[in-house]
Amino acid sequence: MLIPFLALLAGAQAAPPPPAPPLPSDAIAADWRAIPDDEVMVVTLAGNRTVVIRLAPRFAPAHVANVRKLAQAHWWDGTSVYRVQENWVTQWGDETEKKVLPDTVTPSPAAEFDIPAFDAAQRLTRADAYSTGSGVTADGWPVATDGKAAWMPHCYGTVGVARDALPNTGSGSELFTPISGAARRLDRNYTIVGRIIEGMKYMSAMPRSDAAMGVYATAPERTGIVSVRLASEIPAAERPKFEYRSTDNARFAAYIKLREHPAPPTVGLGGIDICDLPLATRRVGAK
Amino acid sequence: MLIPFLALLAGAQAAPPPPAPPLPSDAIAADWRAIPDDEVMVVTLAGNRTVVIRLAPRFAPAHVANVRKLAQAHWWDGTSVYRVQENWVTQWGDETEKKVLPDTVTPSPAAEFDIPAFDAAQRLTRADAYSTGSGVTADGWPVATDGKAAWMPHCYGTVGVARDALPNTGSGSELFTPISGAARRLDRNYTIVGRIIEGMKYMSAMPRSDAAMGVYATAPERTGIVSVRLASEIPAAERPKFEYRSTDNARFAAYIKLREHPAPPTVGLGGIDICDLPLATRRVGAK
Repeated sequence: MLIPFLALLAGAQAAPPPPAPPLPSDAIAADWRAIPDDEVMVVTLAGNRTVVIRLAPRFAPAHVANVRKLAQAHWWDGTSVYRVQENWVTQWGDETEKKVLPDTVTPSPAAEFDIPAFDAAQRLTRADAYSTGSGVTADGWPVATDGKAAWMPHCYGTVGVARDALPNTGSGSELFTPISGAARRLDRNYTIVGRIIEGMKYMSAMPRSDAAMGVYATAPERTGIVSVRLASEIPAAERPKFEYRSTDNARFAAYIKLREHPAPPTVGLGGIDICDLPLATRRVGAK
Repeated sequence: MLIPFLALLAGAQAAPPPPAPPLPSDAIAADWRAIPDDEVMVVTLAGNRTVVIRLAPRFAPAHVANVRKLAQAHWWDGTSVYRVQENWVTQWGDETEKKVLPDTVTPSPAAEFDIPAFDAAQRLTRADAYSTGSGVTADGWPVATDGKAAWMPHCYGTVGVARDALPNTGSGSELFTPISGAARRLDRNYTIVGRIIEGMKYMSAMPRSDAAMGVYATAPERTGIVSVRLASEIPAAERPKFEYRSTDNARFAAYIKLREHPAPPTVGLGGIDICDLPLATRRVGAK
């Protein structure tokens, strides 16, 4: 570390430099909004590894309702991460696919692929399914559009509902997350219930299986799921709190514009990959 | 498995069904072309894990020339994979950044970000940097374009040249590969020398470091690099052989069209993510 020359010369404590003025792309305090406790789901894996999912009830209400009921019933406790396929997905739930669902869970809700009645006023400024102009987000979620429909894209860390060949065959009990960068072909074909906002590093770094579909061939390969809880059901004293950076403001728009048109010598592409949108979340308080 | 009813009834061995006629999207034998031995680079990691890189001399001749010289000098032997940053990259080479380069290596070649004189006749049919129409490939490589320039995109498994802040500061001795799906902002800013065609599962599943930039804080975290060799320098009897599926033919175009417009009930987006192009390679013969 360099010591300011004049301070050294005077032997005096230098006054701290004045804080840099905020940039147009900096968040202000009000941009950070609480994620409701019942939209935060805490997955505890063997080895005390915590994975936190932000649920998306606005985008997939029926499936998120199921997911909440499964968590409330402690249905996932004792299940496992049973599939890790290279360049594809990590998947978890009941590896036997035979565990009975709680009565409260709808076995096969209608698919929720597109965003129903997505408001064009929510600044879908660019009809491009793959890259984004400023503002193609909603409440901190990425939104893809072809100008006619709108949907959530399958990005790294997205949480999707596994299903059989036919569209309306997933309850939400078996979930997956893409662990590479090539899952967009699932868009509009699989229901998305949320995204991982903490602990993705555990899901992404699990050993890949060479067995068919990446399903672990033996039990010891699986990672046990100790528990899955909605934050709203965790005692208040231990309840984790999360916030997201809101995207419906000038600061975020300036941030995206900067990414689209970065300062030289960095070259921009005029847009950014919709899966590279800087959608920030943060844990409030100590872990 | 269901047994054909008539065969069961007759107690006879059913004749095997005739082979299905080829689809327009199926490769024919001639579509598989040899990757030249001096474009195949074999990285052997500790634990006998093999990672194979296809080099891209056509796209980055100066940097690939360096990479070949480093391999020929056995320069990487005894170096390591020293950086694994979640949702970003795995990086390898000399973690001290002090190992002297061979005399034959140019320390800082001019950046090779764009594809020089890329021939418009090579079927750049769609001016979209993020998704692709049929045929935006060359020799089995993905090519992105904005209608004016053309370049290789940073996809999962792409091999890029690490550098300092200024563009012309990478020799090719330190290499990285994106391990998530959000590296496109590196496009036109980093030189690409190839892509991983075998063993990506080893690079992608390494434990992430929480230290700054994902650089492992301690030596035991690193994965040792036993050797790096061009296939052309491996004795013929042990030399691995690879082929790629060529992309300049009607079969591949039909394959892409099928991905863009899949059969119902699957919904297509009218394009596919350029990083999801099905660019196949295969090892010829036993491993």
